[in-house]
Amino acid sequence: MNEKYLALNQSELPERLSSISAITNKVGSNFSNWDVKEVGDGNLNLVFIVIGDKGKIIIKQALPHMRLVGEGWPLTLERSFFEYNALIRQEKRDPGIIPKVYYFNKTQGLIAMEFLEDHNILRGKLINGEKVEGLSNSLGKHCARLAFRGSELYMDSSEKKADSALFYRNVELMGITETFVFTDPYYKAELNFNTDGLAPIIKILREDTKLKTQAHKMLMKFSSHGETMCHGDLHSGSIMCTHNDTKIIDPEFAIYGPMGFDLGMLIANYLMSYFSQPAHRLNSIETSTFQAWLLQIIEDTIEKFSTEFKLLWNTERKGILYSKSLFEDQGQSSKYALDSVMSDIWITLLSICGIEMHRRCLSLAHNDDFEKIEDTVMRAKLEARNLMMGRELLLNSNSIKGVKSLINMAKEFNRKDFL
Amino acid sequence: MNEKYLALNQSELPERLSSISAITNKVGSNFSNWDVKEVGDGNLNLVFIVIGDKGKIIIKQALPHMRLVGEGWPLTLERSFFEYNALIRQEKRDPGIIPKVYYFNKTQGLIAMEFLEDHNILRGKLINGEKVEGLSNSLGKHCARLAFRGSELYMDSSEKKADSALFYRNVELMGITETFVFTDPYYKAELNFNTDGLAPIIKILREDTKLKTQAHKMLMKFSSHGETMCHGDLHSGSIMCTHNDTKIIDPEFAIYGPMGFDLGMLIANYLMSYFSQPAHRLNSIETSTFQAWLLQIIEDTIEKFSTEFKLLWNTERKGILYSKSLFEDQGQSSKYALDSVMSDIWITLLSICGIEMHRRCLSLAHNDDFEKIEDTVMRAKLEARNLMMGRELLLNSNSIKGVKSLINMAKEFNRKDFL
Repeated sequence: MNEKYLALNQSELPERLSSISAITNKVGSNFSNWDVKEVGDGNLNLVFIVIGDKGKIIIKQALPHMRLVGEGWPLTLERSFFEYNALIRQEKRDPGIIPKVYYFNKTQGLIAMEFLEDHNILRGKLINGEKVEGLSNSLGKHCARLAFRGSELYMDSSEKKADSALFYRNVELMGITETFVFTDPYYKAELNFNTDGLAPIIKILREDTKLKTQAHKMLMKFSSHGETMCHGDLHSGSIMCTHNDTKIIDPEFAIYGPMGFDLGMLIANYLMSYFSQPAHRLNSIETSTFQAWLLQIIEDTIEKFSTEFKLLWNTERKGILYSKSLFEDQGQSSKYALDSVMSDIWITLLSICGIEMHRRCLSLAHNDDFEKIEDTVMRAKLEARNLMMGRELLLNSNSIKGVKSLINMAKEFNRKDFL
Repeated sequence: MNEKYLALNQSELPERLSSISAITNKVGSNFSNWDVKEVGDGNLNLVFIVIGDKGKIIIKQALPHMRLVGEGWPLTLERSFFEYNALIRQEKRDPGIIPKVYYFNKTQGLIAMEFLEDHNILRGKLINGEKVEGLSNSLGKHCARLAFRGSELYMDSSEKKADSALFYRNVELMGITETFVFTDPYYKAELNFNTDGLAPIIKILREDTKLKTQAHKMLMKFSSHGETMCHGDLHSGSIMCTHNDTKIIDPEFAIYGPMGFDLGMLIANYLMSYFSQPAHRLNSIETSTFQAWLLQIIEDTIEKFSTEFKLLWNTERKGILYSKSLFEDQGQSSKYALDSVMSDIWITLLSICGIEMHRRCLSLAHNDDFEKIEDTVMRAKLEARNLMMGRELLLNSNSIKGVKSLINMAKEFNRKDFL
């Protein structure tokens, strides 16, 4: 495996990986018996399930081009290096939240990791109306831990700056986000597509210079405000769950970015699931039941985030930011400071949430919550709600106070018809 | 000069530098005739003037410890590398603003540069009541050019991120700023000192958790919001002027930080000069005349900054941020976006200004504007005005509208007595 990069395929994989003990330890060394299946459905990588005598494993290999677009869009393999580096940091900052990592090969852009056999992609579960116990607890706490423990609230300053400098080399994937998430939705970019019938809504968004200013204010935050390590792509396709366990995968878009980025993207994906439910449930009772559960998930996730962040603030604040020497050591409370930090996170969260809601209907990478709706009239109607709420979030992120307002706003937009 | 690091001294310098053609080209190769004088008065370095048959040159060499504190405070020589890298970027982004650079040696932490024979440190000139023609024009434009051309409004994204990653290695000097500028003023830190009599003012500042929260909000910006390359230490001791020419020196604190950082520190230094004038001028007429000039400098500097930034926005905006594809290319004005960016810069500027006004009276590195006032009762009275205005700026950075308000605030604090 130390030769030049070569993409794996199902037939050659066993022989090529057979000498790697970290892999044979998990699946068994009798590689001629390995059962290999390529299951990648993402945009950038090959993903193989390998089953041997001893066990099962996932092999993820980066491709030198963007899978979604094809070989005409070359990508370096370095993202695999960043994914690996992000994985080990995620594991350290929130143990157990990622699949176990067994092996990494930089030249091949290859990571071997735990096969989450009983887990499914959260997005699919939400489309199917399947609830997940403990979802908000896992992800709310996770977002708080990743945000706090990757920042200079917690980390040694030199270590944090070296780390953020390292991840600023993940510029190729940052560029994808900068283009497809923050920019393309707001003008007629070449690779955009959208559901028929959305033209009036798109016109409202693209003619609004205030809205576009807010979007690019957030782009500036994303591209240069390296407050903490973010997963960078925490949508419901990057989360795998059983009925009561939650794991996070695919952190190759990891960056040092603004606190609140991951949580904002996550909440956007819950809201898109929420708005799309009328097309996926059998009747209005099922719809409203599952929608109520989703809103509860949003509320609980944000509450768990806040509670955990506050706990870490009080128990693990050992970095240079808002240092105890200025507050507790002087017999003074740091509550005002905590509230100020949380308020900034909240504003970032709402703004990123709005942008993610836009790009998933207007830019290149759509999501199945809406895409699987075959009735395009229905789809446009539901997407319009989503787009208009995204607009509201982006324009008014400074004045929306508290999670209840967010929940009420979702209910309100769910009742409106914009087309 | 490729041997191990060895600090230069006056007697050995000629022989040690005699083989470097970039240097002998400037001062002449007859090194036994060189006249060498050590003139360093900063906190971190040796500075030699070298005069030979052909000309004069400055040799700046980093010391492996903080000169102000002594050998007990070790520092790496890497800051010289960052100084050199900052210098070449300053020259590229605003040609002519720095002394010419002739030679750099990383191992020796040594930079050879133009001797600004007719220039003096601006701080001394302001203490002496000497005006400088074109000061606001040079520095206002400079701050705009450095801020704009080091950001992703202008730079290629990959290049900018690589550059910011490079400067995040300047962590040692960042740490000095993080400690002495943003933190120490706000509690009784070991190396602090202050003029007798300021205790009641210091109590007001250090008991105010809102104020300290604002200071550390700015610390978070400084330590992680790498929007553009900043000089990082643009006080009036880093500026050298004749009666009508202005140069900037000493960028070893350079970082990628928030837009507005340099301008805020600069304005703070003008304000400290302003508040200190009653102690340096012969009578109240001289005082008010020079104070009026200083306020005019502040007003003009900010205006020149805005005009230049706007010009660059309209003529050189080729980066990913607020891209023309979203605005001008759609036949839409980007004025709202520009105003939004300028408003964020203004808030940063005011907050950094307030912090710099605090740290120069309360932390380790004071400035001569106040320090040279022998009458400590007078000094405390003037410093109190400065400290209380710094507080106002930090607490109300969001609500101070426009440069006129800033000017009026200075006049108001200049009339008040707080002790």
